[in-house]
Amino acid sequence: MSTTPDSAVRTYIEAHKTAFLDDLADWLRIPSVSADPDRSADVRRSAEWLAAALTRTGFPVTEIWDTRPLALPGGPPGAPAVYAEWPSGDPDAPTVLVYGHHDVQPAARADGWDTDPFEPVVRDGRLYARGAADDKGQVFFHALGVRAHLAATGRTAPAVNLKLLIEGEEESGSPNFPALIKARADRLACDAVIVSDTGMWSEDTPTVCTGMRGLADCQIDLYGPDQDIHSGSFGGAVPNPAAEAARLVAALHDADHRVAIPGFYDGVVELTDQERELFAELPFDEARWLRTAKSYATSGEVGHTTLERIWARPTAEVNGIGGGYQGPGGKTIVPASAQLKLSFRLVAGQDTDRIQRLVTEWVADRLPAGIRHEITFWGATRPCLTPLDHPALQSVVRAMGRAFGTGIRFTREGGSGPAADLQDVLDVPVLFLGISVPSDGWHSVNEKVELDLLLKGVETSAYLWSDLAETRTTGSWKQT
Amino acid sequence: MSTTPDSAVRTYIEAHKTAFLDDLADWLRIPSVSADPDRSADVRRSAEWLAAALTRTGFPVTEIWDTRPLALPGGPPGAPAVYAEWPSGDPDAPTVLVYGHHDVQPAARADGWDTDPFEPVVRDGRLYARGAADDKGQVFFHALGVRAHLAATGRTAPAVNLKLLIEGEEESGSPNFPALIKARADRLACDAVIVSDTGMWSEDTPTVCTGMRGLADCQIDLYGPDQDIHSGSFGGAVPNPAAEAARLVAALHDADHRVAIPGFYDGVVELTDQERELFAELPFDEARWLRTAKSYATSGEVGHTTLERIWARPTAEVNGIGGGYQGPGGKTIVPASAQLKLSFRLVAGQDTDRIQRLVTEWVADRLPAGIRHEITFWGATRPCLTPLDHPALQSVVRAMGRAFGTGIRFTREGGSGPAADLQDVLDVPVLFLGISVPSDGWHSVNEKVELDLLLKGVETSAYLWSDLAETRTTGSWKQT
Repeated sequence: MSTTPDSAVRTYIEAHKTAFLDDLADWLRIPSVSADPDRSADVRRSAEWLAAALTRTGFPVTEIWDTRPLALPGGPPGAPAVYAEWPSGDPDAPTVLVYGHHDVQPAARADGWDTDPFEPVVRDGRLYARGAADDKGQVFFHALGVRAHLAATGRTAPAVNLKLLIEGEEESGSPNFPALIKARADRLACDAVIVSDTGMWSEDTPTVCTGMRGLADCQIDLYGPDQDIHSGSFGGAVPNPAAEAARLVAALHDADHRVAIPGFYDGVVELTDQERELFAELPFDEARWLRTAKSYATSGEVGHTTLERIWARPTAEVNGIGGGYQGPGGKTIVPASAQLKLSFRLVAGQDTDRIQRLVTEWVADRLPAGIRHEITFWGATRPCLTPLDHPALQSVVRAMGRAFGTGIRFTREGGSGPAADLQDVLDVPVLFLGISVPSDGWHSVNEKVELDLLLKGVETSAYLWSDLAETRTTGSWKQT
Repeated sequence: MSTTPDSAVRTYIEAHKTAFLDDLADWLRIPSVSADPDRSADVRRSAEWLAAALTRTGFPVTEIWDTRPLALPGGPPGAPAVYAEWPSGDPDAPTVLVYGHHDVQPAARADGWDTDPFEPVVRDGRLYARGAADDKGQVFFHALGVRAHLAATGRTAPAVNLKLLIEGEEESGSPNFPALIKARADRLACDAVIVSDTGMWSEDTPTVCTGMRGLADCQIDLYGPDQDIHSGSFGGAVPNPAAEAARLVAALHDADHRVAIPGFYDGVVELTDQERELFAELPFDEARWLRTAKSYATSGEVGHTTLERIWARPTAEVNGIGGGYQGPGGKTIVPASAQLKLSFRLVAGQDTDRIQRLVTEWVADRLPAGIRHEITFWGATRPCLTPLDHPALQSVVRAMGRAFGTGIRFTREGGSGPAADLQDVLDVPVLFLGISVPSDGWHSVNEKVELDLLLKGVETSAYLWSDLAETRTTGSWKQT
C-alpha cells in the first residue's frame, strides 16, 4: 500500500523544511494561553494566524469558529477554533478529520525557562517554545505533510477528504468543545478522526497510542474568618481554612494510594492480563523515566506498575494549593481563605458528570462548621480507547513505520484530550498520531520539540492519506 | 497610695493629647515591617524617630541598639532597638523597665484595608493604622504618661528609675532579642519589667494580663520534581510535594484537635480547677467573640473552653500554605515544590528548643521517598506567667483602676512576646499593662486603637510610677 513514493516525500520535505520551521516559529510567538482571560486576544490572534497559514497551504475552505455563543452562563467564555477543509475530488474517498489545538499552557520566563517561552529558539536540534510539542508543532506538521503528499503523488487534492479542527481551549479543559462539535456535526462528518496531540514512547521506540485518560479538574475555595486573624488571639479556637484545605487533600487517598472518594472506582474498566503483559513488554527503564519526570521516587496506587498508573488507572492530583501568608518570613495569622486546584484523571468506564458529583458531595460532607466553600469545575474530558486491530489504526501504524523505518508498538496516553467527545458525537473511530517524546516538557518549563521527530511527523502525514484512502475500500471503519 | 493627683493628671493629658496624637501618627507613617527584608531601612527610621521623640520627652539617655552584630550566621539580620533611661534621682527608688516594640506586621492596602495602612486616619474615635495598637500606640502612651506624672507631682524626674527597651524585631519572633538583653543585661538591670504589648478583656471590662503564650514558628519547604511536570504524563506515579505538605498539616492534629506530634504536651503546666473557674467567671459571650474573630464557628482541643484554648493551651496553626499553580483557571501539573508556614503557641512548661527539635524530627519522619525538604525556624519566644498576688502586679491593677474608674480583673494573653526572656535574663517579675481590645485587629486589616482607651493608657502610666515607688518599700519584687 505504498502509493506515495518515499523518496519524493523526503525530497520535498528537505526542500521546504526551513520555511516550515520559520512559519511554525511565527505561530509559537503568539502566547495563546486559553486559561488566562488576559490572553484571550492572543488566542484569537493564534486562530487567525493558523487560518491564514492553512489558506496558504491550499485548503480551499478555512474558517474561524467562535465558541463564545456556545458558552454556558457563568462558565468559561470560549475561545475560537480553526476549521479547514480540502475535498479529495474522488467520490469514493474517505473523509478524515484531523484534531489538534492551538492554545497553550501558561508559561513565564520567571517560572524557570532558560529563554522566553514565547520567543522560539533552536538549540541542539530542538525547537524550544511553549506549544512547540503541545500542540502547535504537531498540528502544523500536517500542513507540510499534505503538501508533500500532493507533490509526491502528483495530485492536486488529497487522496482523502481532509478536514482539520484545531480548537482553542484544550488547555482549559475544552469546556465548549462538546457543544461546538454537536453544533457543527454536519460539517465535521467523517469516517475517522486523527488526533495529533499525543506522544510516543521514545525517539528509538516509535509507538501509536490507543487511548487517553479523561480529566475532571476543579478549584475549591475555602473561607474561614472574614479576614486574616491573629493566631495568638484566636488560633486554636476557630477552624482554619488552610488546615481544612490540607485535610481535604490528605483525605483524597487511602494508605494504598487509592482515591478514597466513595464510588470513585465504580465502573472502571480494569486492565486485562493481556494488556498488562503488553505494557510490561515495553522497554521501560524506571530510573530513566524518573529522570524524565524530574522526580526522585515512584509512588502510586498499590498493585500497579508505573505504566499502568499513568496510562490505565484513574488518579487524584493536587495541581495547586494556596492560603494565608506566602511572603518572606513568618506571619502569625489564621488565614481568611485557602484554595485548592485538583484534577482527576479518568479511565474508560468512568463518567465525568458522575465523578464531578461524587467530588462535590465528598467535599461538602467533609468540611466542618465555620468553613464555607465553593467548588468550580473547569469542564471535563471523557476517557477514550481504540481497539488495537482497527484497520485505520493499522494504516497509521504503516505510515509511521515507513517514516521511522522500524516497527511500531502500542502505548496509551496518560493525558487527556477531547478525543472521546469526537468519538461520541461523530460516531467514528479515533486514532492517534503523535511524535512528541516524554522529555518534551509538556506543561512544564523549557518545552521543546525534537526537530528530526517533527519532520518524521510531516513524513508520516504525507504517507497517511493515500494509505487511508486504500484501506477504506476494505471495509467499514465504524467500531461495533 | 494615690500620690499622683488624678485631676492634675487628667488636666495635663487633655491639654496635650492633640500634639500626642499628631506625634503618634507621624510614627505610624513609617512602615517598620521587620519580616520584610525590603523594609529594613524603614525599621531603622522608626527607631530613629522614637529615639528623637523620647529625647524630646525628657529622657536624658536615648540610644539606638543595633542587633545586627548579634545575629547568627544564616539567621535573620537583626533590627535596631531603642533604649532610653530617666533616673529618678532618689537612691531608694526602684528601677522599672518598660518593654514594647516599634516594628509592625506586614500590611498592604490590597489586603483589604479601607485606607492605606501607613497613612493614619481618625474615624469614629478610632485611630486606624498598622501598629496603632500593636504596638506603637501602646509604647507611645508612656511618653505622655511620664510627662503627666511629672506635671501632676511637680517632680523633675520620675518617681522610679525609668528605662525603656523598645525592640525592632518582635513581629519576626525576636530572633536576636535574647542575645541583645544578655549582652546589655547590666544596662537593663531593674526590679520589674512592664510589658505594654498586650490587650484587655474589653472596653467595659478592663483587665490585667498575667501571662503570655510562647511561640515557635517555622517554614517548611518541600521539593518533589525538579520542575512542574504534566499531571497526565506523570501524575499518580510520583510523589506530589503539595499533597505531602497537605498531609503534614492534616497529621498535625488528632481527631480531638490535640497536637499529634509525639511529646508535644510533655511538661505542659495544666490549668488548676481554680484557674478554670476564674476564666469561666469572665463575662465571655462566645457569639460576640466569634464576631470579633470574624469567624463562623468555634473549634479546638476537646475538653477545653474557648478561653482555655486561646490562653492556656498550646496549639499548632497553619499560617500559610502554597504550592503549584495558584493563578486563574486550571493547570494540570504535579508541582515542583510546596511551602508551609506553621506556628506553635506554647504554654508554661514547654521548652522552645525541645519543641523545635520535636517538630523537626516529626517532619523528617513523615515525608516519603522522593520528597526533599528544608525546615527553618524563625526564632522562638518562651511562654511566661506572673502570680496574681504579686505586689507590683497589684500596683498595676491600682493604677489602671484609677484610670478606668472600675475594678480590674485578670486575663491571660494568647499571643506571644519576649516577656519570658526578660524574666529569665534579668531575673525579675514581668507585669503586663495593655489597653488594646480584641477588635483592634492585630496582624489583620484595618488595625486601630480606641482613642479613649489610648488616653486611659496614658493616665495609667501617669499613676503607675508613684504607686510602684511606694509599693517597692513594702518588700522585694523577686519571684521565688
